[in-house]
Amino acid sequence: MTISTDSKGAERGHLPVNTRNPYQPVGDYISNISRFKIIESTLREGEQFANAFFDTETKIRIAKALDDFGVDYIELTSPAASEQSRKDCEAICKLGLKAKILTHIRCIMEDARIAVETGVDGLDVVIGTSHFLREFSHGKDMEYITKSAIEVINFIKSKGLEVRFSSEDSFRSDLVDLLSLYRTVDKIGVNRVGIADTVGCASPRQVYDLVRTLRGVVSCDIEIHLHDDTGCAIANAYCALEAGATHIDTSVLGIGERNGITSLGGLMARMIVADREHVTKKYNLHKLKDLEDLVAGAVQVNTPFNNPITGFCAFTHKAGIHAKAILNNPSTYEIIDPADFGMTRYVHFASRLTGWNAVKTRVGQLGLFMTDDQVKIVTQKIKALADV
Amino acid sequence: MTISTDSKGAERGHLPVNTRNPYQPVGDYISNISRFKIIESTLREGEQFANAFFDTETKIRIAKALDDFGVDYIELTSPAASEQSRKDCEAICKLGLKAKILTHIRCIMEDARIAVETGVDGLDVVIGTSHFLREFSHGKDMEYITKSAIEVINFIKSKGLEVRFSSEDSFRSDLVDLLSLYRTVDKIGVNRVGIADTVGCASPRQVYDLVRTLRGVVSCDIEIHLHDDTGCAIANAYCALEAGATHIDTSVLGIGERNGITSLGGLMARMIVADREHVTKKYNLHKLKDLEDLVAGAVQVNTPFNNPITGFCAFTHKAGIHAKAILNNPSTYEIIDPADFGMTRYVHFASRLTGWNAVKTRVGQLGLFMTDDQVKIVTQKIKALADV
Repeated sequence: MTISTDSKGAERGHLPVNTRNPYQPVGDYISNISRFKIIESTLREGEQFANAFFDTETKIRIAKALDDFGVDYIELTSPAASEQSRKDCEAICKLGLKAKILTHIRCIMEDARIAVETGVDGLDVVIGTSHFLREFSHGKDMEYITKSAIEVINFIKSKGLEVRFSSEDSFRSDLVDLLSLYRTVDKIGVNRVGIADTVGCASPRQVYDLVRTLRGVVSCDIEIHLHDDTGCAIANAYCALEAGATHIDTSVLGIGERNGITSLGGLMARMIVADREHVTKKYNLHKLKDLEDLVAGAVQVNTPFNNPITGFCAFTHKAGIHAKAILNNPSTYEIIDPADFGMTRYVHFASRLTGWNAVKTRVGQLGLFMTDDQVKIVTQKIKALADV
Repeated sequence: MTISTDSKGAERGHLPVNTRNPYQPVGDYISNISRFKIIESTLREGEQFANAFFDTETKIRIAKALDDFGVDYIELTSPAASEQSRKDCEAICKLGLKAKILTHIRCIMEDARIAVETGVDGLDVVIGTSHFLREFSHGKDMEYITKSAIEVINFIKSKGLEVRFSSEDSFRSDLVDLLSLYRTVDKIGVNRVGIADTVGCASPRQVYDLVRTLRGVVSCDIEIHLHDDTGCAIANAYCALEAGATHIDTSVLGIGERNGITSLGGLMARMIVADREHVTKKYNLHKLKDLEDLVAGAVQVNTPFNNPITGFCAFTHKAGIHAKAILNNPSTYEIIDPADFGMTRYVHFASRLTGWNAVKTRVGQLGLFMTDDQVKIVTQKIKALADV
C-alpha cells in the first residue's frame, strides 16, 4: 500500500537547502556546472549498442524527440559506415531542428569528404592514441596521427563547418603525446577537443586531473565522452565539468558499446542537484520519460528498475523513519523534486518497516479520526500482518 | 550474428596494461583501494527496497550466498522493527557464517537492548544530524544526540560487541557539529564511524574531501553509505576509499530506499580495475551472477540491461574498429576480463557498423579460405543487407 503525495503542495524550499548545505558546489571560474552543453549521441554511440538497429523512421522520431527535449547537439553515425547511414544523415539534416547536427568520423580524408556533403553543422573527428589502439587497431605513430589530424581539420574548416578533434582511449594514452597533439589542433583553430574514456576505466579524480591539465593547454572548448563499464560515467561527467569541460556526450538510457556511456537522464539527475535553475530552464524535463520509453522500445530493453528519476522506485519511500520525515518535508529524504520531471512520489506504509506516522497520515487522508494511541495499535497490527 | 571469443586464450597482459597506464592509482598511504572491506546490506538497506518482502527462508538463502561470495560483513534489519525481524536476525546469527553479522539500529537504548540479545557480532548505530532530520524527523539537538550516542555506544561495548556510529544525511549536516560528534565517539572507543549520503546528493570530490577531513580527526575505521539518486554511488565509494575510508556499504544490484545504494557488482567492476589481484583473491567473483539472479528473483526485478559485468551487453562489441581491435587484443576495448567473472565476450559482425576484420575472423573460424579482397566484398554485402 502506498501514499502518493503531491510534491507541489509541500514546501520544499530549494534555496534554503542550498544555502544551508556546506557541501554545495562553490562558484569556481573554471567550473562549467552551470553552463554545460549536451552532445546527444543516441544516434551514433547508441547505434553501437548490441540491440540497436534503427530504421530511418525511428532515427527521425528519436532526433525530433531529442530536439524537443532541448539537447544542444545531435550526433549521428558516420555517413561513411553504409549507404543507408549517409541517406539517414541527410534526411535528419533536412528536418530543420533547433539542435545542431554532427556526425562522427574517423580521422581520414575519405570519411571527411563524404561527411561534409551531407548537410551537417559539424564533424566530430576521432583517432586512437593509446598504445593499444596504435598497436592493435590502426597501427599509426604520433607523427602520422598529427599529420592526418591537421589535414582533416583544415579540410573541414575550409568547408565552413564546426570541427571537434578527439583522441580515443585518452586515459591510456601517453600524457605528453596527448597534450602535444591537442595543442597543435587547438592552434590551427579546432572548435573543440575531446577526451574519451573509451574503455570506462577512468576514476572521477583522474578525469578531473586530466581535464584540468588540458584546460591549461588549449583555449578551445573541451568535450568528454565516458563509458560506464565501471559505473562511473555520470560521476565522471560531473567531475569533467568541474574541471572545465564544456560539452558532455550522452545517450538516452546510456545505450552504446558494451554497457554504454553517460545517460542523458542520469546527467539530468546529477545536474539538477547542482544547478536546478539552469537545468529546469534549459531542458524540457517533463519529456524525459517519453524520450526514454521511445528509445527503450526501439532497442527492446526495459528501463532499469533503478534508473535515476524514471526507475519505478526512484521516488518510493519505505522505512518508517523515512516515511515520517518525507510526510513532514520531502526534502528530508529527497534531493530531487519528482514534479520537476512530471513524476510522483510514493510512500509505502504497509510493511514491517512501517512507522506509525505514515499510518497516521493515511488515516487522515481517509478522513478517519483516531488518537495517536489508536494509530500505534493499528501500526503494530500492520507490522504483524506484514510479517505473515 | 556474434563471435564468441575465449578470453583465456587471448594474451591480455594485465601487468603491461597497468605499467603503461599513466593514470593508474598511485601508491598512497591514505588510500584503501587495496584493503577495503564490504558491509553487505541487501538484508537491511535492501529490505527497504520497494519490492522487497523477504521471508525467513529467502533471507537465509541470501545470507549464505553473500557469505559464499566472500563479503566481510552482512548487515540485517533492526530486530526492533518487528517480531519476525528479530527471529530472522537470530536465525542468521546461528548459521555459523564466515562473515560477521551486524544489525542496524536507531541510536536509542530500547533498540540496542533488543539487538544485543540476538547473537550479532556488532551493531551499526545511526542518527540523523542534518538540519532536515533534526527539524522534520526526530527533532533532537546536537547535545541530545551526543548524549544518546555516548550512552548507546558504552552499552554496546559493555556487551563486548563491535559498534559503529553513523550520522545520517552527513553531506547536509553542519561540518563542525559532525566532526565534533565523530571525535567524541572515537575517543570513547567506537570501532567505526560512518558517513552516509542518505539522499544521494554528494559528488565525488565532496566525498573525497569530507572523508579526507574526517580521516584527520578520528583514528577508528571509516565506513561509507552512498545512495544512488544522482548515479554517483559507485564512483563516490571509490573516492571514499582513496580518501581513507575502510568499509563500503553495498547491496546486491544496489537495491534499497528509492533507487538504492552502491551495488556489490558495480563496486567489483570498479575495484577490479584498480587492483585486480586483491579483488580476484578475496571475492568469489564467479558467483556474482548467481547472487544477483537470486536477489533479482526475490524482489521480482530484471537485472538492468546495462548492469556492470552482468548486464547482457556488458561485453558485447559492435562497431567495426572496435571488433577488429578486440579480435587482435581484448584489452584494446575492454578494461575488465569477462573470464574473471565467468562471463563471455561477444563480437557482433553482421551490422552496418561491421568492419572486414571481424568478418575475416569469422571466415577463419568457419575453416573457410578467402582472400582479403574477397572478405571485403562479403563485408560490403553484409552492410548492404543490414541496411535492409
